[in-house]
Amino acid sequence: MPLRESVVTIVGMGLMGGSLGMALVRENACRHVRALVRREETARDAVSLRAAHDAVQDPQDALNDSDLVVIATPVRTIERQVSELAAFMRPGSVMTDMGSVKRTIVDAMKRLPQDVRAIGGHPMCGKETSGIQSADPDLFRDKVWVMTPVNEGGEAARDLVTEMIASVAAKPVMMPAEEHDVAVACISHLPYLLACTLVGVAEETGKDSAAVWELASSGFKDTSRVAAGDLTMMMDILSANTENVLLMLGRAGSKLARYTELLLRGHEEELTRELAEARDRRTGMFPGG
Amino acid sequence: MPLRESVVTIVGMGLMGGSLGMALVRENACRHVRALVRREETARDAVSLRAAHDAVQDPQDALNDSDLVVIATPVRTIERQVSELAAFMRPGSVMTDMGSVKRTIVDAMKRLPQDVRAIGGHPMCGKETSGIQSADPDLFRDKVWVMTPVNEGGEAARDLVTEMIASVAAKPVMMPAEEHDVAVACISHLPYLLACTLVGVAEETGKDSAAVWELASSGFKDTSRVAAGDLTMMMDILSANTENVLLMLGRAGSKLARYTELLLRGHEEELTRELAEARDRRTGMFPGG
Repeated sequence: MPLRESVVTIVGMGLMGGSLGMALVRENACRHVRALVRREETARDAVSLRAAHDAVQDPQDALNDSDLVVIATPVRTIERQVSELAAFMRPGSVMTDMGSVKRTIVDAMKRLPQDVRAIGGHPMCGKETSGIQSADPDLFRDKVWVMTPVNEGGEAARDLVTEMIASVAAKPVMMPAEEHDVAVACISHLPYLLACTLVGVAEETGKDSAAVWELASSGFKDTSRVAAGDLTMMMDILSANTENVLLMLGRAGSKLARYTELLLRGHEEELTRELAEARDRRTGMFPGG
Repeated sequence: MPLRESVVTIVGMGLMGGSLGMALVRENACRHVRALVRREETARDAVSLRAAHDAVQDPQDALNDSDLVVIATPVRTIERQVSELAAFMRPGSVMTDMGSVKRTIVDAMKRLPQDVRAIGGHPMCGKETSGIQSADPDLFRDKVWVMTPVNEGGEAARDLVTEMIASVAAKPVMMPAEEHDVAVACISHLPYLLACTLVGVAEETGKDSAAVWELASSGFKDTSRVAAGDLTMMMDILSANTENVLLMLGRAGSKLARYTELLLRGHEEELTRELAEARDRRTGMFPGG
C-alpha cells in the first residue's frame, strides 16, 4: 500500500514523534496520522499542535487499522514495545522505530511473527530540548535517516518507510544495525561524554579558581553544548550501546594519553602533525565551519 | 595621558591586532593608530582595511613616539618581543599584549627596566579563521578582556589599558597571571584537545566503518568545532602553558576512566547523578543553549 493511502500510528509524542507527526500532517503525506500516547495531556497536545489527526491511549484502538506503526519512545522502551505492540497489529502491516541505537531493537524485531514486517530506523537529528513542545516539522529536512534491515527480503517495510522518510524531506540510508551502532557511538555518544567530561573538569577546576566561570567563552560553549541534552534519553542510549561506547571511551582515553606523552616529552613536531591531521579532517568535513 | 591623546602602536596585524586596530580607528579612540609589522603586504592591508592610520616595518620608527604599545603576535613571539621592543620605547610609555597565556609573558615584563610600564592582557574571544582578512572591529564587544598585573603599583598601565579595552566595548577584568593560565587551560586549551580527540577517534573508527562520515551531524559538529582552529597559535599556547594543560588532560582522562568504570559495572544511578551534574552546570552557564 502506498503511504498516501496508509493509516500511520506514531507511538510516543516526544520531540521525535511529535516532529514526525507534524511533518506528515502538514505534507498531507498519508490518509490518517494517529498518536498512541500514555498521558491524556500529551494526547490533547498532539492534536492541538497538529502532530496527529487523533490521539488515543489504548494500543488496540490505535493499531487495529494501522498500516504503519512508528515507535518513537526511548530506546529501552522500544525494545520492550516491539513485541507488545506487534500483538495488536494487523497482518501485513509495517513496524519501524526512531531509536538512537539499533542492534537491540532489530534483535527484538527478528523475534516477531512473520506477518508483521519490521525495519529499524533512526533519523540523524535532534535538539537540546525535548518533548512535543519542542517539536518541529522541519527537524528532518536534509538529514540522514538510517534504515536497518531486520531480515533478508523485507521490501514491503523498506518501501513504505522509505516513502515516509522522503515525505518529511529526509535522506534514507540503509545500513546494518551493527555498523550504525559503532558509528553513532563515535559521532554521537562519545561527543556527549566528552562534553560532560569538559564540564566535569571545569566543575573540579572551578572549586579552586572562580575565574573558570568568568572566562568561559565560545570554545567552551561549543564543545560542551551537547552535555545539556536529554539525560533520560542518553542513559537509555548508553545502556543499549554500552559495548561500542566503551570502545570509543577507550580510544578517546588513548588519544588523551598520547597528547599527554607528546607534551611531556616536548615532541612538538609529532604533536603538530597529529593536531594538523585533526584540523584538516574537521575542515574537510564541515568547510563552512 | 588619556587614550584620546595617545599614539597606539599595535605589533602584529593578525586577527587580534587587526580587529583591535579597526575598532580603535572606527571609534576614533586615540590620536593615532600605528601598525608595526614584518611584511610589506601586511602593512598595505592594515592601512587599506582601516586597521591602522599608518603601518611601518622598523621598530625604532614605530615606537619612538608611541604612548601605548600592544603586542599582538603569537605567545612565544611575545615572550621574546617584550624586551626587544622595550629597548625602543620612550620612558613612561605603556606596554601590553594580547597573548593567550600570561605567566611567561608577565615574567618577561617583570624583567623590563622601570621606565616602561607593562601589564599583561588577553581578550577572551576568537574565531576559527585567522589573519587580518578575518579581522572584525566588533570582535571584542561584550567580551571579557583579562588584565594581569606585573608589579605592585602599575596604575598608569592599568588605567590606560582599561580605557583602551572599554573603547572597544570589552569588559576589563583584573586577575593574577597564574589564575588566568589555570582557567584558560580548562576552558580553552582542554576544549581544543578534546575536539581533536573526537576527530582523532572518528579518524580511527572511520577506517573500518565509513558510516562515521555519513552519519556525523550537529552533535559531532559542535563538539569538534574548535579542532579547526589556528594550529600555529595553539602549538604556541600548549607549549607556553604546558603544566596547566597537562593538569587538565589528567583530569579529563580521570573523568573518562570514571565513566568507563560506571558503565562497565552497570552503576546507572551513579552515572546518571554525575551526568546530571554536568547537564545542570552547562544549562546554568548558558541558559540560551
